Amino acid sequence: MVVKVGIAKLGNIASGVMAELLLDERADREDMQTFMATSGTKLQPEDIDRVVSTMKAWEPDFCIVVSPNGVLPGPVGARDELLKAGIPCVVITDDITTKKEGWEALKASSFGYIIMKADAMIGARREFLDPVEMADFNGNLVKVLALTGAFRKLQTELDKVIDQVKEGKKGADLVLPKVVMTSDKAVDGEFSNPYALAKARAAYEIAQAVAGVNVKGCFMTKEWEKYIPIVASAHEMMRQAAALGDEAREIEKAGNGIIRKPHKKDGTIVSKITLISKPE
Amino acid sequence: MVVKVGIAKLGNIASGVMAELLLDERADREDMQTFMATSGTKLQPEDIDRVVSTMKAWEPDFCIVVSPNGVLPGPVGARDELLKAGIPCVVITDDITTKKEGWEALKASSFGYIIMKADAMIGARREFLDPVEMADFNGNLVKVLALTGAFRKLQTELDKVIDQVKEGKKGADLVLPKVVMTSDKAVDGEFSNPYALAKARAAYEIAQAVAGVNVKGCFMTKEWEKYIPIVASAHEMMRQAAALGDEAREIEKAGNGIIRKPHKKDGTIVSKITLISKPE
Amino acid sequence: MVVKVGIAKLGNIASGVMAELLLDERADREDMQTFMATSGTKLQPEDIDRVVSTMKAWEPDFCIVVSPNGVLPGPVGARDELLKAGIPCVVITDDITTKKEGWEALKASSFGYIIMKADAMIGARREFLDPVEMADFNGNLVKVLALTGAFRKLQTELDKVIDQVKEGKKGADLVLPKVVMTSDKAVDGEFSNPYALAKARAAYEIAQAVAGVNVKGCFMTKEWEKYIPIVASAHEMMRQAAALGDEAREIEKAGNGIIRKPHKKDGTIVSKITLISKPE
Amino acid sequence: MVVKVGIAKLGNIASGVMAELLLDERADREDMQTFMATSGTKLQPEDIDRVVSTMKAWEPDFCIVVSPNGVLPGPVGARDELLKAGIPCVVITDDITTKKEGWEALKASSFGYIIMKADAMIGARREFLDPVEMADFNGNLVKVLALTGAFRKLQTELDKVIDQVKEGKKGADLVLPKVVMTSDKAVDGEFSNPYALAKARAAYEIAQAVAGVNVKGCFMTKEWEKYIPIVASAHEMMRQAAALGDEAREIEKAGNGIIRKPHKKDGTIVSKITLISKPE
Amino acid sequence: MVVKVGIAKLGNIASGVMAELLLDERADREDMQTFMATSGTKLQPEDIDRVVSTMKAWEPDFCIVVSPNGVLPGPVGARDELLKAGIPCVVITDDITTKKEGWEALKASSFGYIIMKADAMIGARREFLDPVEMADFNGNLVKVLALTGAFRKLQTELDKVIDQVKEGKKGADLVLPKVVMTSDKAVDGEFSNPYALAKARAAYEIAQAVAGVNVKGCFMTKEWEKYIPIVASAHEMMRQAAALGDEAREIEKAGNGIIRKPHKKDGTIVSKITLISKPE
Amino acid sequence: MVVKVGIAKLGNIASGVMAELLLDERADREDMQTFMATSGTKLQPEDIDRVVSTMKAWEPDFCIVVSPNGVLPGPVGARDELLKAGIPCVVITDDITTKKEGWEALKASSFGYIIMKADAMIGARREFLDPVEMADFNGNLVKVLALTGAFRKLQTELDKVIDQVKEGKKGADLVLPKVVMTSDKAVDGEFSNPYALAKARAAYEIAQAVAGVNVKGCFMTKEWEKYIPIVASAHEMMRQAAALGDEAREIEKAGNGIIRKPHKKDGTIVSKITLISKPE
Ligand SMILES: [Mg+2]
Ligand SMILES: [Mg+2]
Ligand SMILES: [Mg+2]
Ligand SMILES: [Mg+2]
Ligand SMILES: [Mg+2]
Ligand SMILES: [Mg+2]
Ligand SMILES: [Mg+2]
Ligand SMILES: [Mg+2]
Repeated sequence: MVVKVGIAKLGNIASGVMAELLLDERADREDMQTFMATSGTKLQPEDIDRVVSTMKAWEPDFCIVVSPNGVLPGPVGARDELLKAGIPCVVITDDITTKKEGWEALKASSFGYIIMKADAMIGARREFLDPVEMADFNGNLVKVLALTGAFRKLQTELDKVIDQVKEGKKGADLVLPKVVMTSDKAVDGEFSNPYALAKARAAYEIAQAVAGVNVKGCFMTKEWEKYIPIVASAHEMMRQAAALGDEAREIEKAGNGIIRKPHKKDGTIVSKITLISKPE
Repeated sequence: MVVKVGIAKLGNIASGVMAELLLDERADREDMQTFMATSGTKLQPEDIDRVVSTMKAWEPDFCIVVSPNGVLPGPVGARDELLKAGIPCVVITDDITTKKEGWEALKASSFGYIIMKADAMIGARREFLDPVEMADFNGNLVKVLALTGAFRKLQTELDKVIDQVKEGKKGADLVLPKVVMTSDKAVDGEFSNPYALAKARAAYEIAQAVAGVNVKGCFMTKEWEKYIPIVASAHEMMRQAAALGDEAREIEKAGNGIIRKPHKKDGTIVSKITLISKPE
Repeated sequence: MVVKVGIAKLGNIASGVMAELLLDERADREDMQTFMATSGTKLQPEDIDRVVSTMKAWEPDFCIVVSPNGVLPGPVGARDELLKAGIPCVVITDDITTKKEGWEALKASSFGYIIMKADAMIGARREFLDPVEMADFNGNLVKVLALTGAFRKLQTELDKVIDQVKEGKKGADLVLPKVVMTSDKAVDGEFSNPYALAKARAAYEIAQAVAGVNVKGCFMTKEWEKYIPIVASAHEMMRQAAALGDEAREIEKAGNGIIRKPHKKDGTIVSKITLISKPE
Repeated sequence: MVVKVGIAKLGNIASGVMAELLLDERADREDMQTFMATSGTKLQPEDIDRVVSTMKAWEPDFCIVVSPNGVLPGPVGARDELLKAGIPCVVITDDITTKKEGWEALKASSFGYIIMKADAMIGARREFLDPVEMADFNGNLVKVLALTGAFRKLQTELDKVIDQVKEGKKGADLVLPKVVMTSDKAVDGEFSNPYALAKARAAYEIAQAVAGVNVKGCFMTKEWEKYIPIVASAHEMMRQAAALGDEAREIEKAGNGIIRKPHKKDGTIVSKITLISKPE
Repeated sequence: MVVKVGIAKLGNIASGVMAELLLDERADREDMQTFMATSGTKLQPEDIDRVVSTMKAWEPDFCIVVSPNGVLPGPVGARDELLKAGIPCVVITDDITTKKEGWEALKASSFGYIIMKADAMIGARREFLDPVEMADFNGNLVKVLALTGAFRKLQTELDKVIDQVKEGKKGADLVLPKVVMTSDKAVDGEFSNPYALAKARAAYEIAQAVAGVNVKGCFMTKEWEKYIPIVASAHEMMRQAAALGDEAREIEKAGNGIIRKPHKKDGTIVSKITLISKPE
Repeated sequence: MVVKVGIAKLGNIASGVMAELLLDERADREDMQTFMATSGTKLQPEDIDRVVSTMKAWEPDFCIVVSPNGVLPGPVGARDELLKAGIPCVVITDDITTKKEGWEALKASSFGYIIMKADAMIGARREFLDPVEMADFNGNLVKVLALTGAFRKLQTELDKVIDQVKEGKKGADLVLPKVVMTSDKAVDGEFSNPYALAKARAAYEIAQAVAGVNVKGCFMTKEWEKYIPIVASAHEMMRQAAALGDEAREIEKAGNGIIRKPHKKDGTIVSKITLISKPE
């Protein structure tokens, strides 16, 4: 059986940049296929409609709906539409836990969700953010999410849904993830050395703190002479978070302790630690 | 007028991870929209067909076809199909210039192309590459492509096509990019400080050299005790390339010399150097 | 005239570790003298009484009262006592702005205050914090406060009070500082290069975020297996903040742009930038 | 029983910046209390007298007299005065072992002493040393003294005196420390990994070599164009020493080998190595 | 018996800078002596003749002929001349394996050879290479060759020849090394930690890639505005390779795993790992 | 005219490793030639005799005699012998200025000398120093001597002698260098940025301090458990000195301020600063 995983990307967050790759890192899995469509960076009704229609037409076993700020009308409408079409959805979004009402509604709903607290907003000011700065920030953020364990947890949760489909479950019977990805959650079980874990946890906390600084720089400060240094400092924080994630991994290398959990062709996850060894 | 840019992603290369984001880094452009579909990491006929059909149905003004090894039957078939449907295509691929025949054919064709020589193959061995390692490698590679100027060059070439559409050109009248992205090409005009440029050039060269090492580790070495250290060393090279790209940018910061070229809402590109200033 | 500056240290925060040194960095000022007494790390009534009595006996022109959590009964009692004795007080404390009531009272009072938001609580758990870890954390925090400009702002505010005394003002006529030391406040005017400023601002934000993590680790988590990684991650954050402050200063070195503002013997502050030059 | 530890700080050296904190790093010891008074950075008779009188009035069980250059009349007078009042003294000073006569006298005396050879003189030139540079240098030096083990040795020696008081000894019966803190002495027994120890030893040696450079820059060179680069180079040396101390600790982290020796509430010292463990 | 090892250096490559030192690292070997003569950086017939005559006059048991580009007439003539005089030769050269004919001839000959593939050509352009740049490049390259294991392999091969002489073999009976020093060859058996090995392998690969960049900059590019950045980037690559070699060694330190193989006085090689131990 | 420069290397110091290369960094000088002979690492009479005879036979215009500890009978005898043969000599040695008598004799003699104070003794203990450690130490030391300016000063002094020969002077008429290479001497005039100079000066001071530590480890400590950490710490110091030299150069890169002084073919020295420029 080949599970069909749809991915609807509405706008961009770093967690969505490689969601489908995380599920099949060497492109050799035979138990599932993915189809992703994205509205680019836009969240207009017609953009979203295009993505949703494409997904509905493909009839995936379940659909991942990735977007920033997943309590906005756009993403909310998209998942409602997909649900109506009988497609179970897992929402992946950056932090919406401070937006009380929307967050309560999502928690109470039948949707799955993964709230990535470190997937901080970018410093989206024209005087600062050009394509190079944007890509570099996302490169750093991808490294943070990868090296702290957050990406692994996200992947594992999605794999659990795939496994259920393979076992014959479908629609409303699927148990979907309900995860707020905190620093403690992200790093849990990912490290052999406790100082590596502490560094990764610190990296995640710093990345998480970036959001507040960019919100201040993008929405709460008017004068460009003032907001430029603010968003610039937020990107320096993210660069440092990436460096710290890297330090964590270097410590694991020093102890030959990196925990690797590749997929096999049949989708099962195997595990290994010693570098020169076969995963089991 | 709103230009419709289609993006067909067949399998994954780092250059494709954020192609649509490079064109609209702050999601505020009003002169174009993008629609991307991807086959995930698969290159099977049915996967490709799904993507191509989706694109054809949308009828973009032109289409970017991103894939590894763009002389394989899959990507070649996809672009032929799109061309037949009257959709001009720009091929983005990792290095195929050593694959003589396919490369000659592409050069001679009416397709545009951007060959990203530093977008090196990943160390795709199960004993080594799990989702975390995959994401970290891509984070490093994104940083290299961003910080050396390669992404800017890619974006600029695509923007030129968009501009032509805005001027009323279409189909076969569009002048499409014909670019082999070498280290010299990537760094040209991107730096205020010549040592920053030299470091970026070095980063690009190292990234480019990764490909050969991973080819050896993935295709030319049988024993896992032998290929694991090889692919591991390739990833260490890429990590170092990213570090060197970072050094280049830090030098530019020290001279307050980072060249920023953001898009305006109408898609025009403005430019600035001094951090605390407005782009013009 | 020689101004008498009393310093009452009740318990420890990094801002107090070298308050008297900041006022007379080369020990050659002839216009003022300081006398400091401290209760060590204790905040018991008798400890505080000892310090307060010593200060009252010396009859300083004004007194700096440094303590953590400056809304606790101990520090509050100490400053009330000193005020009753006619000694104007400037309160220096770590962040109390989240403790609404006490903070409102302090704002409304006649006391001066300097709230050091980055002077984060230490990871005070016996399983983690021994004398070496404590000293290293404070070394890092001293570097952050120095290199971001926070210490300079603190020193300048205190120098303004000294200057008033030299001009003949005293008691209630002294205008005392009312400063919440935010990241924007700390870095303002301290850097020649805007990226150095952005890095320093980032360092300050990270240091500030340490407080929340240590509060969680010290007061909100019961199990030692859980709180050890939390406080360890907080110290990793502070180490990274110090590294970032250091990066800021290195950038200033690269541009020969470090702004130096030493005291002269008569207490006036002179200024210089180019390293090989005389301050003016 | 609560031991009373007096601390008289005359002028400043880094070893004195946190002497009282080292004895009670989490402020929860119930077996002793400290009272510290300081003359600020001044060493005038009246400044010293103020400190000495305060100490005598408090009648501590013993007194630590911290100062630079502990063979100067000021510090010598202070300890003689305290001794006359029946208060045993431990002298903490930077390196005086090259000042033959004074050193011989101290060795022969009944005073305890801890000579901190790495507590190098600062680059006290107005063209260079402002409050920020001063604080940063001391931050670096605190890190060196902490991370090499020198602070632990100092603390342990003082704790031994406290223990004697708790056992009922007093006055001339107390066995006081007689320690010259060399690099070999500082690092002894502090590290699990021998390369960490070698790095810490190197850090201490570099810090120790700073003194000679600053003496040359402060006392033996007249022209400011010449002495500025000299003292600037001394501070670069100290920055590098701190970096090396940090490398040592990172190596210990990599092996989960940091040796921690916190105080318990009753003042006993417990010990642990593995991070996630209870000290014993 | 004392073996006589001659070393003829014709021009310079980094592998020759310390060939004789590698054989007797503490200058206490009693079983052999070396005599080295060099033509400086020149390869003119008379320069070579001087060196060859000196060697012939000394009558070494065998001779090492070190030069760049060991298929040039100069080095070829020198070794032929020495062979004619009955002196067995081992050729050490940078990479000549791309120079097919000369390489085949050498392989087929009775000479021994060690082809050092990472001993890359320097960026020999007057606008870039002055004595400081030259020495720094060689310092980096020496570090790469040392820290990757390449120097050890070279030394071991030469020691094997010395051992044969000690056993009584001579002239054509000596089995001479036939080694192409690839990355895999260099790192083999040199590391306790597999990530250290991977980093060293990466360092070697980067150093090897420098050659192509410098060939482009020195021989294939005419305009100085173009070739300066090219050779500058090659030196940045080598600097990074040295940094990576250093990372490898630091990882080994973290695991107390550095493999040391010193010579004893009698020339035998002993071995040890734990730092605080005697070699055996 | 082609000046003949002889180089007699007796034993090894880092200053001798590339003396001849410093004089002709791109091997294209037409005004001089060098001939170097070395006794390897030995200093026995017969080894020295071999070198001296070779030199005398060649009849150079002047001879550089490089050795460690240049007041030992071996090096002293060698230069006396060469002088007797009418060959003017310049002595290059590591620090002998603490060896009073020999140093006074050399100063008073007709020999030229360059005393390289940072060319510190290596940690020559079998338990520590194998060929890899030896080469890495020398790589670091070469970097220190290059990047601090010490090598340039050495080269310039030798070039001055060559220039005199070209002007027709010879024998006793040659004015030979009389230089003690202190940190101040080494860095003088080598840097555009004063912080780069300060860092280089610090690197040189640290390297210089290595000597004392290695002397203690090699000659003054008996037990191997004790001397291993001592010599290991000395090598850590040298590694840090190299890192600091590197920092100095990176600062110069950031300001596009590296001063380059290549030789032309005719031996004249030209100069440039901006990287993309021709030397003049
Ligand atoms: Mg985002
Ligand atoms: Mg592993
Ligand atoms: Mg605190
Ligand atoms: Mg001091
Ligand atoms: Mg531990
Ligand atoms: Mg070479
Ligand atoms: Mg030496
Ligand atoms: Mg230059």
